[in-house]
Amino acid sequence: MILDRGSSVPLHQQVAEYITSHITNGEWVTGSRLPSQRKLADQLHVNRSTVTAAFEELTAQGLIEGKRGGGTRVVNNTWGLMAKRKPADWGAYVEAGQFKPNLPMIRTINEAEFIPDIIRLGTGELSPDLIPSEKLIHLFTKSSFKPRSLGYSEPKGDLQLREQISYYLKKNGINAEPSSILVVSGALQALQLISIGLLDRGSTVLLEKPSYLYSIHVFQSSGMRFCGLPMDSEGFMPDQLSEFKKEVDSAIVYTIPSFHNPTGTVMSLSRRKELLFACEQERMPLIEDDVYRDLWIETPPPPALKSIDHSGNVLYIGSMSKTLSPGLRIGWIVGAKPVIDRLADIKMQSDYGSSSLSQWVAAECLRTEIYEEHSSYVRNRLKIRRDHLLSLLTNYLKDLAEWHKPSGGFYIWLKLIPTIDPRVLFERALQQGILLNPGVLYDRNARQYLRLSYAYASFKEMEQAILVLRNLVLELGW
Amino acid sequence: MILDRGSSVPLHQQVAEYITSHITNGEWVTGSRLPSQRKLADQLHVNRSTVTAAFEELTAQGLIEGKRGGGTRVVNNTWGLMAKRKPADWGAYVEAGQFKPNLPMIRTINEAEFIPDIIRLGTGELSPDLIPSEKLIHLFTKSSFKPRSLGYSEPKGDLQLREQISYYLKKNGINAEPSSILVVSGALQALQLISIGLLDRGSTVLLEKPSYLYSIHVFQSSGMRFCGLPMDSEGFMPDQLSEFKKEVDSAIVYTIPSFHNPTGTVMSLSRRKELLFACEQERMPLIEDDVYRDLWIETPPPPALKSIDHSGNVLYIGSMSKTLSPGLRIGWIVGAKPVIDRLADIKMQSDYGSSSLSQWVAAECLRTEIYEEHSSYVRNRLKIRRDHLLSLLTNYLKDLAEWHKPSGGFYIWLKLIPTIDPRVLFERALQQGILLNPGVLYDRNARQYLRLSYAYASFKEMEQAILVLRNLVLELGW
Ligand SMILES: Cc1ncc(COP(=O)(O)O)c(C=O)c1O
Ligand SMILES: Cc1ncc(COP(=O)(O)O)c(C=O)c1O
Repeated sequence: MILDRGSSVPLHQQVAEYITSHITNGEWVTGSRLPSQRKLADQLHVNRSTVTAAFEELTAQGLIEGKRGGGTRVVNNTWGLMAKRKPADWGAYVEAGQFKPNLPMIRTINEAEFIPDIIRLGTGELSPDLIPSEKLIHLFTKSSFKPRSLGYSEPKGDLQLREQISYYLKKNGINAEPSSILVVSGALQALQLISIGLLDRGSTVLLEKPSYLYSIHVFQSSGMRFCGLPMDSEGFMPDQLSEFKKEVDSAIVYTIPSFHNPTGTVMSLSRRKELLFACEQERMPLIEDDVYRDLWIETPPPPALKSIDHSGNVLYIGSMSKTLSPGLRIGWIVGAKPVIDRLADIKMQSDYGSSSLSQWVAAECLRTEIYEEHSSYVRNRLKIRRDHLLSLLTNYLKDLAEWHKPSGGFYIWLKLIPTIDPRVLFERALQQGILLNPGVLYDRNARQYLRLSYAYASFKEMEQAILVLRNLVLELGW
Repeated sequence: MILDRGSSVPLHQQVAEYITSHITNGEWVTGSRLPSQRKLADQLHVNRSTVTAAFEELTAQGLIEGKRGGGTRVVNNTWGLMAKRKPADWGAYVEAGQFKPNLPMIRTINEAEFIPDIIRLGTGELSPDLIPSEKLIHLFTKSSFKPRSLGYSEPKGDLQLREQISYYLKKNGINAEPSSILVVSGALQALQLISIGLLDRGSTVLLEKPSYLYSIHVFQSSGMRFCGLPMDSEGFMPDQLSEFKKEVDSAIVYTIPSFHNPTGTVMSLSRRKELLFACEQERMPLIEDDVYRDLWIETPPPPALKSIDHSGNVLYIGSMSKTLSPGLRIGWIVGAKPVIDRLADIKMQSDYGSSSLSQWVAAECLRTEIYEEHSSYVRNRLKIRRDHLLSLLTNYLKDLAEWHKPSGGFYIWLKLIPTIDPRVLFERALQQGILLNPGVLYDRNARQYLRLSYAYASFKEMEQAILVLRNLVLELGW
């Protein structure tokens, strides 16, 4: 070890470290005598007083002990034992922590989305040209933005925004006072807050299989288990709910009834009623994740579960991400007031509320009908985009895959007919600049599926990607 | 129970509920015969077919059973047992969850801050006139905001912002590549991510006592214990660190070295070095919460621990909240890359990143030097505000309290000489429109202390509040 004179760590500390490292290494064992101060000073090219200071420090720490006349010795103490640990053991801290890491494939996707020119064929995000950035920014040139709005916000979020959300929900048949609404930083945060705020470790989440929820870890990281129930063309099949409920102590249902991620399924009205009824009977709360509601193509989906819920069982989640802009990070939770109070408290403890700028923009969009106009525009564009992707599928993958025509949302749940290792397909596609979302992210057993999205890639990119996909399927299949 | 014909719950379901509730109540016990369908139809004023549908539903659920010729009976099954639970048991869910509720006093404060005309004498927030709202909004009228910026952001946050933060940190002596920086939604979220991402349940946090950290629950909610160490005028006293470390398995140090919240203390340079050294020796990571760094009044504080840390032990936290605007919700964590990678992953899983609008504004403020100019302006204003509050204290509380003159930050840690129940003082002040931050929030034993802030209230409000405080102390004291 050479001392670093340019460093801001004082020399005597560096000397102390030098001595410590020798002890830690086992070179200078407990009971042994240290080199004299003079010798060390010579050896390290420092003043003797520097070595004295180092000795004093180590003596104070109980690592060494000076005996009158007998020099200085290494003392046998627990400190020595502890020091044998690896230095700055961040590795252990990175391994620790209660939050599970994202699936490696998800992490790869999160990073790959930012590779320039990558084609994102499965991304759950609007294409940049479908985000009304100019309009949103133009809002700021009007002078209604008040200074107050840039302080910390109210626990449940800006009141004006909550009033606008309340009004917007009313148009969707949902009656919710502003005090029953919590503004969150996107629907994902809603799930995170629910998982840490309302559920005990060991609780069970009953959900559709496949589901978006399988691709994230918020619930599992809080110690919850998943129990996936099958879907049919009308959605979630609640007839098994009570069976499952019998086997578990505490359970909650999670569903995406409208334009389900990843299958695109819309739950039928009768199924909605059955599900609600089953939950009421079982006294089971239900989380309704309704972030795609406004993205219908032919006809609006049946009423939200929340709008036909009279028992207060439903916690309702909405978001601006899929219709307006994910970058705003604005969503909401609607529920019984004590539940919302509890979640608001946890939100305050997690991040002191969402961005005031974003909250203000979201409120203005709802107030000025930018939101309504824009969602109608997005619907039109998504129709064209969907039809384009469908025709590409028909042209290039008719013999190789199966799919349904979705009636809204972003996704086509593509089933490949040949058997292909999803990981290999994912990696080979990535090498060719195509980012896929394999079905296994949403259901471990959906190895033959891909989640395609018509919301993000351009027409040309879609064609390019589908062609690559065709070739890969031909090459890797069977 | 009267059926609700206006409701969207079908009548037969309402009838089924009616029957269920009678069974649940214990009115119709297992084995007993139900009233005939005709009788029920008459009683409830519905068609017989409606009752039939209800019976079918309940039969399918296994709750009742029709015997040919013998009418319909309540069946003894586990369902009946479960149904005895209270309906829609949100109460239990509100009690459950892993996150501890905020202290009641904190919740009262969070809400009371939004009472119109309340005087906030302890608030850790800049007064609205110190937040440069116009300047921030003016940024949007320039056209450099790119549509891309309103999509989901990169896992570690917008690259341009991270580059600006990296450059800003360099001016503070901290070398950090953008890849070692994670953008978060305020310093509080940084703490939340660290608590769920890096620490095991049962870990110990060694911290100053009193500390801001006592007033929030992020660490305790993740199952960590606190071990508060005393401070003196130079700050944290690290000489006891190794003693404490011996007794615990896994520990991390948390400190606010510059303009400590709530005491205002600045850790001396020598103390900083000792603390770093102790942490290195003990292989203990350290969280440096440096959100007040730029708010010095007479002279800048000593270098950040992070800037003199050569072992990578320090996780550094900064924020825009105290200098520019808390409503932006922008802060950062700087640390070893694997640690930042891990935290970025958890951030993605918690909320998919911070608001793009806020990130962009923060980056522009750093780039255009709005940030630098504004912090200098805030420093000047805080000096005047501090001096005003100090002179009020001298005028009105000289005989009743003790305090030190802070050299930066927001706070005066006021020690009342008479003994007063802090809760009574808090409530009586609140009745008179004055919101106080009692010392007990930051240290259970600091019953005689108040955290005063000169950052928020106006001069007139400060005077009014100090007068009320004087009268309350005289009335309640001794
Ligand atoms: C069903 C579902 N819920 C929630 C989310 C998260 O959306 P947000 O951006 O509002 O957090 C998504 C986004 O992919 C989603 O598909
Ligand atoms: C020491 C300290 N750390 C963190 C925070 C949280 O600040 P932010 O608004 O950046 O989340 C505060 C604010 O009160 C604070 O005083």
